[in-house]
Amino acid sequence: MKRRLSILGSTGSIGTQALEVVDNLSAELQVVILTAKSNVSLLAEQARKYSPEMVALADETRLPELRRLLADPDITVAGGRSGLLEAASRSDVDLCLNGLVGVAGMEPTIAALEAGTDVALSNKESLVMAGDHITGLLQESNVQLFPVDSEHSAIWQCLTGEDLSQVRRLILTGSGGPFRTWTREQMEKVTVREALQHPNWDMGPKITVDSATMMNKGLEVIEARWLFGLGPDRIDIVVHPQSIIHSMVEFVDSSVKAQLGVPDMKVPIQYALTYPDHQPAEWPRLDLAEIGQLTFEPPDPGKFPCIALAFEALERGGSAPAVLNLANDRAVAAFLSEQIGYTTIPRILEQALAAHPYVAHPTLADIASLTEWTDRYFQEELGWEAGR
Amino acid sequence: MKRRLSILGSTGSIGTQALEVVDNLSAELQVVILTAKSNVSLLAEQARKYSPEMVALADETRLPELRRLLADPDITVAGGRSGLLEAASRSDVDLCLNGLVGVAGMEPTIAALEAGTDVALSNKESLVMAGDHITGLLQESNVQLFPVDSEHSAIWQCLTGEDLSQVRRLILTGSGGPFRTWTREQMEKVTVREALQHPNWDMGPKITVDSATMMNKGLEVIEARWLFGLGPDRIDIVVHPQSIIHSMVEFVDSSVKAQLGVPDMKVPIQYALTYPDHQPAEWPRLDLAEIGQLTFEPPDPGKFPCIALAFEALERGGSAPAVLNLANDRAVAAFLSEQIGYTTIPRILEQALAAHPYVAHPTLADIASLTEWTDRYFQEELGWEAGR
Repeated sequence: MKRRLSILGSTGSIGTQALEVVDNLSAELQVVILTAKSNVSLLAEQARKYSPEMVALADETRLPELRRLLADPDITVAGGRSGLLEAASRSDVDLCLNGLVGVAGMEPTIAALEAGTDVALSNKESLVMAGDHITGLLQESNVQLFPVDSEHSAIWQCLTGEDLSQVRRLILTGSGGPFRTWTREQMEKVTVREALQHPNWDMGPKITVDSATMMNKGLEVIEARWLFGLGPDRIDIVVHPQSIIHSMVEFVDSSVKAQLGVPDMKVPIQYALTYPDHQPAEWPRLDLAEIGQLTFEPPDPGKFPCIALAFEALERGGSAPAVLNLANDRAVAAFLSEQIGYTTIPRILEQALAAHPYVAHPTLADIASLTEWTDRYFQEELGWEAGR
Repeated sequence: MKRRLSILGSTGSIGTQALEVVDNLSAELQVVILTAKSNVSLLAEQARKYSPEMVALADETRLPELRRLLADPDITVAGGRSGLLEAASRSDVDLCLNGLVGVAGMEPTIAALEAGTDVALSNKESLVMAGDHITGLLQESNVQLFPVDSEHSAIWQCLTGEDLSQVRRLILTGSGGPFRTWTREQMEKVTVREALQHPNWDMGPKITVDSATMMNKGLEVIEARWLFGLGPDRIDIVVHPQSIIHSMVEFVDSSVKAQLGVPDMKVPIQYALTYPDHQPAEWPRLDLAEIGQLTFEPPDPGKFPCIALAFEALERGGSAPAVLNLANDRAVAAFLSEQIGYTTIPRILEQALAAHPYVAHPTLADIASLTEWTDRYFQEELGWEAGR
């Protein structure tokens, strides 16, 4: 029996790599649902190749184009946000890979889990925004969440067969991004193009900017808190520019386990899709003698203020991590559209964290209100920024 | 219920560190047997501190001295080789830590396993000499072998919860010893004092010399073959001078797991004594940001010919690994007593391997004959060497 997969965000960076994994394991994995935001031609091409039972396109305006390109009566076509949620809610799949980027990925994670489907989660915003709610769902039911991020997959793999109560701390590694060796003055003038050049990983633009600011690492700390149930005082970050050690677990006897590999998202994607098995794959193999050296340094708080903001939000709890993430989404978008400068990102996040109407135990309705609040806040702030 | 331990070689490097582990976990571990070769004063001191049920001293001539120092009617005192084997054969212990150095440790391992006692094995010669025989004992019975070597402990920890059939290869790390950066000409003149200065680990003289020649790593490859059941084509060595990554496992999906830590034998010793648990210990913690860099290089076959000899012996199988090990014991002893030079070690091993009467399936009796053969061979060779 093949494992039946839905892939949310199949035309994105994670989605296309997940389909390479499916190609590698076509005897084990079957794609039954594909969804995309707006890349109609690629989605149609994928649908022709994998013959899913359903495709969904979030951008409803391009739905007629998709129907015309597909012209396959065996494939159900759905559109808009409701189509995406319908795809995520299908209970006749074994595993839903959520490769959506940003807050848009949160509801589909919850929909899949509520439908009783295990989720391979690449969308880190799901846990950052609604970690408490999702943890509750997991505890109430039989469903499981499998991390796809290279860092969390590393920790998950290091915890195989181990007892979480014997863990002293988690150590997340981060490359330090393209600006690790820049001065603060140089960082004042970072361009969008410079921020999109990640040294090791091939990812989408939002995550690449998050990697440059190391907010990515901050959000991963928050995500790790929910995935593994350890507080911020038991999660550390070390900068490791080569991205070979993907993360580590230190046990109470000072023994440390690490997961390593050539930077290639297909490895953690495949592991999440084939868990608990390692399935054969001819991905590039690690050759440490050829690499020669691995280096490590503490993250510089002056250069990467987003890390401290993430720890602060996690310590504060309640609505703080959600607002940090919502504000970061908007700040990165504003930077990518050249509305704000690079160093404005942490400044505006700090302001938003301080200014937002704090809620100690946010419901999904509260998260919706906070989303509206953040939108208004950014309209005002960006107006202010534009008028400077 | 405390775990009842026997410690063979309690006054040696592994034995004394094992007692530090017992001090750390006195609520979990109880020492019931201690044995030493000849260090009467330390054995007596240990016996007074831990109140074992039995002590054994291999050097029978010093037994009266031990009895006088101890003067405790509750402690059974045994002497000589038979006393050591009696201690190893006691079936009323839960775990026997074999910290003996050299071939002398083989029989006690077999005696303990035959008595139904699990063995925490530091003595690598047991498996190198009698891997086939010991593997047979483990398959026939319920007893288990727990590795104590930092490298094998690392691999064992990386395999926790994993399926051995999904392993692509084992990667043993080795520091490269004190002569890694020396030229071959400099190595011609290595003194005993220089060979005993290991950069990272505090070990006994025999193992320290083996570490300098990297025969240690070669013997570990042979040991790994028996511990984990993988052939020599699936075991690699990488030189890693900092000894922070203690060894690695590569799975078939190219994911690599490593176990890391500050070089401290107490960590693998404790893990073997508390398996499957990691128990709290305030051993020094790994700080990769402080260490800064880890380096890796392929082992230089010209500088470390012992590695190729070990792989050759493993490929040949039968009596070859046993003879390699017997000859190495004698060659290192001859070097330590300044009878032969440092670079004569691999040369004499190669000769012994080629000259020995090969046995395809050696019994324990064959191993005894091979031991006599090696003794005669070295008497002749060393006579020849002395007369050069």
